[in-house]
Order: sequence, then C-alpha cells, then structure tokens
Amino acid sequence: MPQPVFLSGLTFRHTDGMVRVGVDENLAPQLLVDLPREVEIVRIPRKPSSTLEVDFWILVFARKDAQQTFSHLRGVKVVQSMMAGVDWIAPWLPKEIVLCDGRGVHDVSASEWVLTAILTSLKRFPRYRDSQLRQEWKGQASVMDGFLSEGGAQVGQYQVLGDDLAGKTVLIVGYGSIGAAIEARLRPFDVKIMRVARSPRKEPEIFAVTELRRLLPQADVVVLIVPLTPETHRLIGATEIGLMKRGALLVNAARGPVVVTDALVEALEKHRVRAVLDVTDPEPLPAGHPLWSAPNCMITPHVGGSTPEFIHRAFRFGAQQVRRFLAGEELENIVTGAGY
Amino acid sequence: MPQPVFLSGLTFRHTDGMVRVGVDENLAPQLLVDLPREVEIVRIPRKPSSTLEVDFWILVFARKDAQQTFSHLRGVKVVQSMMAGVDWIAPWLPKEIVLCDGRGVHDVSASEWVLTAILTSLKRFPRYRDSQLRQEWKGQASVMDGFLSEGGAQVGQYQVLGDDLAGKTVLIVGYGSIGAAIEARLRPFDVKIMRVARSPRKEPEIFAVTELRRLLPQADVVVLIVPLTPETHRLIGATEIGLMKRGALLVNAARGPVVVTDALVEALEKHRVRAVLDVTDPEPLPAGHPLWSAPNCMITPHVGGSTPEFIHRAFRFGAQQVRRFLAGEELENIVTGAGY
Repeated sequence: MPQPVFLSGLTFRHTDGMVRVGVDENLAPQLLVDLPREVEIVRIPRKPSSTLEVDFWILVFARKDAQQTFSHLRGVKVVQSMMAGVDWIAPWLPKEIVLCDGRGVHDVSASEWVLTAILTSLKRFPRYRDSQLRQEWKGQASVMDGFLSEGGAQVGQYQVLGDDLAGKTVLIVGYGSIGAAIEARLRPFDVKIMRVARSPRKEPEIFAVTELRRLLPQADVVVLIVPLTPETHRLIGATEIGLMKRGALLVNAARGPVVVTDALVEALEKHRVRAVLDVTDPEPLPAGHPLWSAPNCMITPHVGGSTPEFIHRAFRFGAQQVRRFLAGEELENIVTGAGY
Repeated sequence: MPQPVFLSGLTFRHTDGMVRVGVDENLAPQLLVDLPREVEIVRIPRKPSSTLEVDFWILVFARKDAQQTFSHLRGVKVVQSMMAGVDWIAPWLPKEIVLCDGRGVHDVSASEWVLTAILTSLKRFPRYRDSQLRQEWKGQASVMDGFLSEGGAQVGQYQVLGDDLAGKTVLIVGYGSIGAAIEARLRPFDVKIMRVARSPRKEPEIFAVTELRRLLPQADVVVLIVPLTPETHRLIGATEIGLMKRGALLVNAARGPVVVTDALVEALEKHRVRAVLDVTDPEPLPAGHPLWSAPNCMITPHVGGSTPEFIHRAFRFGAQQVRRFLAGEELENIVTGAGY
C-alpha cells in the first residue's frame, strides 16, 4: 500500500503569473465549475500536434496514450491522477514532477462495487440472470450447485442457491481508505473482518502481508484492493488459491496482475473457489479467454470505481488541489516526485 | 403427566401423553436435533393415504398442496409456518387452530437479498453478466444506457453504467422486522430512508400507507416488503409507478400480486423505471411472459428468504416453539387462531 506522502516545505513559484491547468479536450464544462477563476484552462487534444504549456495536469481515467500526450507538455509541475492506482503513469513520469493519486475519491464507488460483488456472488444472482435469459424459473430445490451438492450448509431436499453473508469471515487484502470504506459497509452484516496491509498496525488490527498465507484458510471471502506494485504483482497464485477454503469467494477490485490468471482459471474450473473480477490479466479480456466462461465467475469490465457521481467528486477534489497549489499549500495524495 | 398448554388464556389438553410434531416426510434428520426428546416425530408423506394424528405441524416452505395435506391430519392445534407471509395458508385454516408465522427467521436472508437486489441493479451487474455471456468487455464510455443517455448524472464522454447508492433515497414499504433489518444494512451507505407501514409511528418515523403516493416521487429506490393482504393486493399499480422518479428502482421482496404486473411491464418497456423481482404474478413466471425480457428488470425465482443457513435458523425457532407448547408458555408469532 502506498503510504500518504505529504509535500512539506516545498513551494512552487509561478514565474509567469497564470497557472495553466491541463484537462482533456472533450471534458464537459460543468466539471470545471469548481476550479479557481484565476487559472487558465488548457484543453489538451487527444493527439497533440504541438507542444503545450501546462503547470497542473488533471488526468481522470487511466489512458494508454498518457505518456505520448505527456511528451508534448512543457512546464508540468504536478500530475493529478484521479485513479486510486498510478501504476500506469508512475514508471515513466520524471521523478521531479509531483504525482498525486485519487486516494479517497473512489471510496464510495469502489466499496459499493465490492459489496455488490460479494452479495451478488453469495446470492447467485449471475446464475439467476442466466436462468432469466433462458426464461426458466428455477428456484430452491431445483437447481444443483457445484458447491452445495457436496453437503456442507445445505440439508436434505432443501438445496438452495444463495448463501448468507451473515456469519462469514471476510479478509480485506490492502487496507487503505477503500478498505476501511468496505469494512464500514460490511459491519451490519454480522461478518468477521480480517485485514492485511503492507505494514501491520493495531486498532484496527491489520496483519502484515507476510501473514497472508496463514489467514487465507480462515476466510470465506477474500477481497483484493491493493495497488499494483512489484510486491503485489502475482500476489495470489496457485499456492494462495490452494489455501482458500473450498467454495470461498475471491473478489479482485485491485489490478488484474495481482492474481495469476492461469491459477485462477484452473481453480474455478475445478470448482475450488468462486470469483468476481472487475480487473483481469490480460485486460481487456479477449473473446475466447477461458475466464469468460469459467464456472462461478462474474466479470465486470473495470468499472468498479466509475460512476457518474464519481466524476463530480473527482473534480471537486481536483479543484481543491489546484487551490492548494495556487496558495502554496501542501498538496494531498502525493505519491512520488520532488524528492520523494 | 402431560402439562396443560396455556395459549393466551387458552388451554390445550394433551389427552394421550405424547405431543406429536408433524414434519415433511423427507426432512433431513439433522434439522430435528433441537426438538425436545419427549415429542413424537410424525413424518407426513407428500400425498398421505390415510389420516395422521398431529398436534403441532411445522411447515417450512409454502406448499400448494398444504390444504390437501391438512385434510388428512387430525388433532392439529398449532400450525407453525416458517414463511414470513401466511397468505397461502390463512384463508383455509380453521380459525380455532393457532397459526404462527416465521417472523424474524427471515430477517438475515431477506434483508441480504434486498441489499443484493438494490446494489446489483444500481451497479448494472445483470447487464455486465449479459456482456460476459457474449464475451464482450464493455466498460465505461462504451455502453449506452436507456436512462443515462438522457443526461442527468452522466457528463460528457464519461458515460458509465453504474450508479452510486450513496446519496439516494430509499423508501421501505412495509416496516416490520425485515424492514428494520434492511435499514440497518443500508445505513452505512449514506442513504436517506423513508418508511411506510399500515400504522404510522414515531421513532423511527413511519408513515401510514395512505401517505404512499406523497412519498413515491421522492424515492430513488422503492422496496416492497409488505405481507399480502386485501389492503396490499395491487398496492403498486399504474398510478403509483407513474409517481416514481424516472429511472427509480422498484424492488419486490413481498408477493407478486402486490404489484400490478401489466402496469410494471409497461413502465419497464417505456424505460420509466427499473425493477428487481423475487416474486411475480403469475408465479412461477411462465416462459414467454414479457417480464422475463423487460429492460432493466432482474428476476430471481422466489429465493430471497431461502438460504441453507435459513433452514437451520428456522428449525431452531421451530424447536423453541415446540418447547413453549410443551411447557404451556405463550407461543411467539401468532397470526390467527384461538380467538385472534
């Protein structure tokens, strides 16, 4: 987990008076209403043909052509990404430029996506949707399930599809602001929460990531919400999936490469675990990839943090950052740059 | 010696010593472990060929042949249904027999189903499931939506599918123990809750059902969790649906006939509202019915309250009721009978 790094004692000097804020060419005007009036808005074309002077670059979504666009910008002092993860920009951004992430602005939408993922899988909504598309009313006692048919919670003729979340143990892997937002929403469901992060802490008790293998066998639901770093790359492989309870649910709301795709596909096809994935490796997932049709696997196309309301929250935060920049105050959410 | 059983002033006398508890023929033995040892278990065949002596009949799920089965039973004093609604049994059960419902035992599973329904619809999981079945990765800015295409929350090129639950207003129609359980689980999502029940109350503020039409235009999500009674039959018709916000979500976790099906189908097909239905009218929904394929409608086959854990909770409650009966204590959850 990237720790918050605050820029202290560093002052940007605006030598030519006007601060230039770069945004996407097509950005809707109503998203810019919160920006201070004294800034100059620079609309950056998708494929710039000449160089552009920009002091403060606001990037809302991850863009594959961000590096290409950056090569046309001059004078950039701050890059403000609205994504929680900055793995798509940090590697190539010059170290003297301050990079800020969107920590916090995704808490609501991402934690809501995770709750949706957990509940939709436990309650077998994807399966019911499939029945709906076939116009088949298949309720309790009439649909077999790969997990329930082996006994466990189900009893006698009352073979039903949905599980209760109540009484389950949820392991949150990556415990930053989104992790805490997930926990807050899980609390009334009467679940046991376990937390893992890069650094262990007390109150709430957070275990070090080195304890992951010890904790995995205790969890009914494993939620991945770590940033993609060299440490979290392929964090969940065959060994880790093998340590999960049979029938446990893996939710990936982090990045595709945090999970070893082949190992997950194999475990799904063997009815070892279930999964709900908002991110995949590769991504986008190509047609014909075995993940698409793996049993007990639900996929959403990397939309977890993205809702219409998110954009407004993100730009309100962006406007606050620009105000801090203008006032010479410390920026929030600094990830790298200016000596860090 | 058999003890007299006092039921709110009414006394049952067990003239022949042994109290006979009737259960389904195929009921798994492990569900009966909590029953007092001194009772006689009577296993009732699906189609009884002769009469059976039963004092206390435990019915787990609604059964169409319950009345037929009952005609073969003699000496029934208590019918304990585990369903929250008893509309399928109350009309034909002789009034001198005590009928108890399953109030409380569905709180966990039913409230979890309702949260799943709300989130799955707002986050467009059924739509993503459809894309998954076609092996299509369609994320933000690439899928048009019947509601979002008209503006509102979406901005410029950032057309995304999922909504946030945060900031929404949820109207809970029917505020018993399940309604309160739904509210408890909704609370961390930062929503406004409005409540309607037959009788108005204060703290929490519950409006009378006569106020429904005034409240409907304020709600983003309308959850139906009323019992089916003459008052709630066709409670939500064309007028009520017409009062809902455009794009609002109707969740039916009550009974199919609480909603006028034709009116709902018409509103769905006009992209006026969304719906998630666990119950329908008719039920089961026949293949070819327009509800199956109505836009923005997700259907589960009356499974909301049914989970493997529910069965155990239900039978623990049933065993407590039998103990109360044996001890001559007042039963819980009495709906009708013995003067009620």
